Amino acid sequence: MSHSPDIQMLRTRYREVREYSLTLATPLSEEDQCIQSMTDTSPTKWHLAHTTWFFETMLLKRHVRGYQAFNPRFEYLFNSYYDALGPRHPRSQRGLLTRPALHEVHAYRLYVDIAVLNLMSNANTELWAEIEPIITLGLQHEQQHQELILTDILHALSCNPLLPAYRIKPEPVPSQATQVGPIRWIDQPGGVIEVGCGATDGSFAFDNEKPRHPVFLGPYAISDRLVTCGEFAQFIADDGYLRPEFWLSDGWAILQANDWRHPAYWLPADDPRLHDLGESPHEWHVYGLDGTRPLEHAAAVSHLSFYEAAAYAQWAGARLPTEFEWEAAFVAPGISQMTGHVWQWTRSSYDPYPGFKPLDGVASEYNGKFMVGQLVLRGSSVATPAGHTRSTYRNFFPPSARWQFSGLRLARDI
Amino acid sequence: MSHSPDIQMLRTRYREVREYSLTLATPLSEEDQCIQSMTDTSPTKWHLAHTTWFFETMLLKRHVRGYQAFNPRFEYLFNSYYDALGPRHPRSQRGLLTRPALHEVHAYRLYVDIAVLNLMSNANTELWAEIEPIITLGLQHEQQHQELILTDILHALSCNPLLPAYRIKPEPVPSQATQVGPIRWIDQPGGVIEVGCGATDGSFAFDNEKPRHPVFLGPYAISDRLVTCGEFAQFIADDGYLRPEFWLSDGWAILQANDWRHPAYWLPADDPRLHDLGESPHEWHVYGLDGTRPLEHAAAVSHLSFYEAAAYAQWAGARLPTEFEWEAAFVAPGISQMTGHVWQWTRSSYDPYPGFKPLDGVASEYNGKFMVGQLVLRGSSVATPAGHTRSTYRNFFPPSARWQFSGLRLARDI
Amino acid sequence: MSHSPDIQMLRTRYREVREYSLTLATPLSEEDQCIQSMTDTSPTKWHLAHTTWFFETMLLKRHVRGYQAFNPRFEYLFNSYYDALGPRHPRSQRGLLTRPALHEVHAYRLYVDIAVLNLMSNANTELWAEIEPIITLGLQHEQQHQELILTDILHALSCNPLLPAYRIKPEPVPSQATQVGPIRWIDQPGGVIEVGCGATDGSFAFDNEKPRHPVFLGPYAISDRLVTCGEFAQFIADDGYLRPEFWLSDGWAILQANDWRHPAYWLPADDPRLHDLGESPHEWHVYGLDGTRPLEHAAAVSHLSFYEAAAYAQWAGARLPTEFEWEAAFVAPGISQMTGHVWQWTRSSYDPYPGFKPLDGVASEYNGKFMVGQLVLRGSSVATPAGHTRSTYRNFFPPSARWQFSGLRLARDI
Amino acid sequence: MSHSPDIQMLRTRYREVREYSLTLATPLSEEDQCIQSMTDTSPTKWHLAHTTWFFETMLLKRHVRGYQAFNPRFEYLFNSYYDALGPRHPRSQRGLLTRPALHEVHAYRLYVDIAVLNLMSNANTELWAEIEPIITLGLQHEQQHQELILTDILHALSCNPLLPAYRIKPEPVPSQATQVGPIRWIDQPGGVIEVGCGATDGSFAFDNEKPRHPVFLGPYAISDRLVTCGEFAQFIADDGYLRPEFWLSDGWAILQANDWRHPAYWLPADDPRLHDLGESPHEWHVYGLDGTRPLEHAAAVSHLSFYEAAAYAQWAGARLPTEFEWEAAFVAPGISQMTGHVWQWTRSSYDPYPGFKPLDGVASEYNGKFMVGQLVLRGSSVATPAGHTRSTYRNFFPPSARWQFSGLRLARDI
Repeated sequence: MSHSPDIQMLRTRYREVREYSLTLATPLSEEDQCIQSMTDTSPTKWHLAHTTWFFETMLLKRHVRGYQAFNPRFEYLFNSYYDALGPRHPRSQRGLLTRPALHEVHAYRLYVDIAVLNLMSNANTELWAEIEPIITLGLQHEQQHQELILTDILHALSCNPLLPAYRIKPEPVPSQATQVGPIRWIDQPGGVIEVGCGATDGSFAFDNEKPRHPVFLGPYAISDRLVTCGEFAQFIADDGYLRPEFWLSDGWAILQANDWRHPAYWLPADDPRLHDLGESPHEWHVYGLDGTRPLEHAAAVSHLSFYEAAAYAQWAGARLPTEFEWEAAFVAPGISQMTGHVWQWTRSSYDPYPGFKPLDGVASEYNGKFMVGQLVLRGSSVATPAGHTRSTYRNFFPPSARWQFSGLRLARDI
Repeated sequence: MSHSPDIQMLRTRYREVREYSLTLATPLSEEDQCIQSMTDTSPTKWHLAHTTWFFETMLLKRHVRGYQAFNPRFEYLFNSYYDALGPRHPRSQRGLLTRPALHEVHAYRLYVDIAVLNLMSNANTELWAEIEPIITLGLQHEQQHQELILTDILHALSCNPLLPAYRIKPEPVPSQATQVGPIRWIDQPGGVIEVGCGATDGSFAFDNEKPRHPVFLGPYAISDRLVTCGEFAQFIADDGYLRPEFWLSDGWAILQANDWRHPAYWLPADDPRLHDLGESPHEWHVYGLDGTRPLEHAAAVSHLSFYEAAAYAQWAGARLPTEFEWEAAFVAPGISQMTGHVWQWTRSSYDPYPGFKPLDGVASEYNGKFMVGQLVLRGSSVATPAGHTRSTYRNFFPPSARWQFSGLRLARDI
Repeated sequence: MSHSPDIQMLRTRYREVREYSLTLATPLSEEDQCIQSMTDTSPTKWHLAHTTWFFETMLLKRHVRGYQAFNPRFEYLFNSYYDALGPRHPRSQRGLLTRPALHEVHAYRLYVDIAVLNLMSNANTELWAEIEPIITLGLQHEQQHQELILTDILHALSCNPLLPAYRIKPEPVPSQATQVGPIRWIDQPGGVIEVGCGATDGSFAFDNEKPRHPVFLGPYAISDRLVTCGEFAQFIADDGYLRPEFWLSDGWAILQANDWRHPAYWLPADDPRLHDLGESPHEWHVYGLDGTRPLEHAAAVSHLSFYEAAAYAQWAGARLPTEFEWEAAFVAPGISQMTGHVWQWTRSSYDPYPGFKPLDGVASEYNGKFMVGQLVLRGSSVATPAGHTRSTYRNFFPPSARWQFSGLRLARDI
Repeated sequence: MSHSPDIQMLRTRYREVREYSLTLATPLSEEDQCIQSMTDTSPTKWHLAHTTWFFETMLLKRHVRGYQAFNPRFEYLFNSYYDALGPRHPRSQRGLLTRPALHEVHAYRLYVDIAVLNLMSNANTELWAEIEPIITLGLQHEQQHQELILTDILHALSCNPLLPAYRIKPEPVPSQATQVGPIRWIDQPGGVIEVGCGATDGSFAFDNEKPRHPVFLGPYAISDRLVTCGEFAQFIADDGYLRPEFWLSDGWAILQANDWRHPAYWLPADDPRLHDLGESPHEWHVYGLDGTRPLEHAAAVSHLSFYEAAAYAQWAGARLPTEFEWEAAFVAPGISQMTGHVWQWTRSSYDPYPGFKPLDGVASEYNGKFMVGQLVLRGSSVATPAGHTRSTYRNFFPPSARWQFSGLRLARDI
């Protein structure tokens, strides 16, 4: 049977995306891949299994006649949050699953990959129309978990007093001058503009980006670049974490309860773990995927909660952009750092778009049921896989989340 | 000194509003007025003192030369959440303040009232321009607490297994047929419409209702009336509280953790407290300000969390309106029950309006710092004081709150 | 019917004990009597009702033919912990019972008192043999709650930043020199000695003091007096609360979790509540039933947890006595302050005596079911009612309890 | 240098004990050895490292001139609870230490073992007198952790819905008839008897077993054997977990809060995990080190909390023995199963013996600081290493602990 170019292309893409998940796990030991440092995060091994479960459950069990599950228990173990698919292992206990062993999860991936690739090879036009959207969704889903593999292992390793690095050889950071000039404000006229992703557009988008619809924006200005670590250090030095006037009420309460004094993963000069590292620093250090390094003043500040981002903006005499202001400015001349550095908190709650419809069928729980109590982040980060970026992409996290690569860009009324 | 009509009018209004707070407390004993049943609620006595503290702190201490505080310690005891005004008594411990005694709080009210009325009487034009907005704000603030006096004591008394009634003589309920017909859908065209309250409008509005600004709405339909208790009982009978497909993820988790099976204050037929009351009911009862009564099928369902309201809408094949859809439909022909029955959950997160500016000065913490993690409710309830209702009014509560008089109205796309 | 002298005597005693409970409540407002500041404590009103419930449930309902309960719901409301008597109001919510009102509880007391006194008057010999032990137990029970009325209201009022005094006119403290000499050690030979209360002894004792039985003690020395506030201040000054070597592991954990730096109710010189009181102290103050006073150096230190008592003893190069060492030394020549000042923590866990038998019948849950995880205190305190003291009395509290009048006496091996 | 026989013997014993720890870990993967399922338990890897830390810290750093620590950070990572030795890694986060890797911990063990064996080889008489007690203590300490390796991994694996077995090939259970006869009561006369371990005795004992001292015991009877699973199943069938009259108050509260209905690791016939295993059982199953098996009726019941043991005894019309009754009966004719099956809860709180002195020096925190709030268990279990059993041995756990091999033997007064 000869494969159509579409099928060939998706088979190639499938293999690439699936392989990249394993590549991300390469620097990690079996032990590293097993642990879970908080309920919000998951073990690497769990991510590897769950993304496979997604293809097995959503695709193979529904479209391969007589499909034999790799292990019937995995239905229970690796379901994340799909109530329609039955009971599941509690989220907070994913780190206790030493069995299946990592090599069994590798075997599970191989087993499923072969079945998926076979299914694609043998698909006629009718079947292809059915399975192509599921496979595409599954790959987008896997890419989301690829970012989580990085953010989650970073959190897990940060709990180790030895502060081990995820990778020894540092990743070249996105081109970043050691100094940046002052922010430049880019004026935007507003008016009725179209946002979101249209159904007619052939490329992929999640249900939460749809439908494309008009919104009314007043005129505003948006900063040409992200807020830097150096700027954020000034906020700290100006007692930003000690002055309630900059903070939302919930944020101030969380700050006090958790004794927040700086972004997550920043280490003050007197942190005993720095001393142990044989350094005698006189300034901030930052722990990250490459280990512990002196603060890079020109780098985008990261690992902020929404509360910290909003407090910084208040201190700076500005505000956060709404998600639509951000989206409307995506192609504004002079704007930079919109993607690839840090996710950018917006001043928009994660509400459904007018006319929002969840996906049909088994993936209907994918996005819609989380649309309350979260804030929208736009852009993408250093941890986002290549090709997983769109101007209409809506990422979302609770306002207290700090373990993502999350920073901010300023806006103001004009 | 002759008083201008404006001053006279506000003096009269001041006396009326202040007196009404005491009227609300009339059915309650000293003990009743002291207790606090959860951190979200406050004792009646505390409400009486805090609303007085508001005038003393925001007005008298700033505008009466040589003003002697009634008791300097009250600054600490009765501050609610104003960080700029120094430390305060922890919110969760308001129920332990047996001292000052109730009669001392009454004396405090009298002391402050005399000073406020004197200040008004003697105000020249310049001073009047300064103090009038504060007094007006203080009265609006007191009206908000008047509603809370009722919702909070209802919760407190509901914790008593004797289920005592707040008032013996039942309030006549808002005209309510014993039967209602099916919902009628009112179509609205949408388009760019103006919402919020304009600065030029002379009447009062809170800062969170401003500025007036255009939004774009698609066409939609909104139901002509509220969802009733009888309709909600059908949702329960259809296993609404047992089927996750209707629920937002957070709502389902809270339902399970708290074993929610019906709205707050509903009593199933086998509740032992009903048996003690000497009743042998065969159906739902509802506890309220008038005590325990059989479910009124035609009455608006109340004491719902946002999660329950949204789940009901999902079950009914509809959705909640956004706050702007609600506002745009306020004067639609045929619409009813927009105010005076229950606050109506909308599908809008409580975000700041574009161009939102907090109040200047000491009351700047009034609204803005709560603009995250909450949902907007529109309308007003049976507990809202007369004259405290506006089409642009934005009430807000966390999505899990159930102790307010909160229900819903349906909407749908067309 | 003429009453026997026994009956007359018990009737008199009944009236005296019951009246004393009300006397203790005299300085308190209705509000004061309603509040509960933590789960371990109870409102005054609840104590007044529960002690009455005890007579109604244990005596009247069982021995008065056709007895009509004052209010059938009180069975549920005022049961403390008797599982055999059915479900009960949750302990943590006793402070929410504004109804029944205080005057109803007073009426309840009167109603039950009349019935009890009548029952006694009309008892024949056979009935008397049955009811006398229950009435005596009920009065002992009420005396225990009389002490709790004081300790519980002290805790409740201490939560008020105004630090109100329970009584304005100070109680004369037990004769107390302003200075005390050094501790004198009293040697005791040990050997096989009899402890506990014998069945043949006519006077009252609780089941947990029985049976009298031999124990073997080695030789030891016990201090002639209690540890004073002045001595305890030296422990603090010597960093006693900062040095783990003095502390049991659980105690050190609790100290750190709660930031203990001194006994309960001690106020350091810089406590803002002292400043508000218009004092500018240079030393410790102590809050108590008479309000806030400068530390009395010669007074027995009080409001210690077991952990603090044991840590002090460790610091002082001594140890706590066992409960049997304490009991054996009760009549030792030269010993003082054994009763009437503070309950004295012993180094004995609250285990059953060999041959321990709980009370028969409805009061069987009185003591036995608490015999794990608690420590024995011996003696009695300033809050113990007159006549409620015995050398064999076993009081018991969890090791972290601090709201009792609890201190210590030292012992050591010889 | 020629080694004395004593030194040779201890070197041999050192190697055997140390090797046995690794033997116990053999069936476990790297992942298995890393996880921690609750704060009370520790990862296998942590046990392997901590027991090594003990020798390094207590012995090598103090007695080897110029000793170079294997890794200076391990002082912080593997200290268990010794406050005198500085800060330590939080107990609840031991499961997050993926680094050092398991092979590094193996290297650590080897490094320390060589140094310890060298130190022994080269010790002169004077040094030997100093180090021999520390080495002996270290080996006893390691044996305690050998038992914990088993109990802790059993708990960890039990949290996996797959219920993996620690070992595939079942251990032959201690000789156990499939049926047992009724309990036989063995009468003991009591009197003044000596308990504990004397200083003059040459063999090892922990400080908490000393000094040997007289106690007075009344006459009592003790059962000749342990309570069996079959007997405990009758207690369950008789609603033992539903009737509060058998339970201590704290135990009843914990039972209700945790919904206890049977011993830990028992699986009712309808447990879904049994179904997954392909079994269709009609009776209890029990999960253990060998996996899941049908209940063995004649086997000693295990994994009971003190509360369950005491409730069973109450139901059976008996009581638990005190620790001294147990010790006095150790050599009674006809008694069996005193060691090697399950630890036996006694009715004795873990209090210090009269004249108790903690160890001198760095190990002074070994036992004494835990002497409150725990209960004594006597005997030993299937998990106790050979040679780690004594009639005077005092094991201790909080009354709610269920993850040990803990059961009971009955006693009664005569």
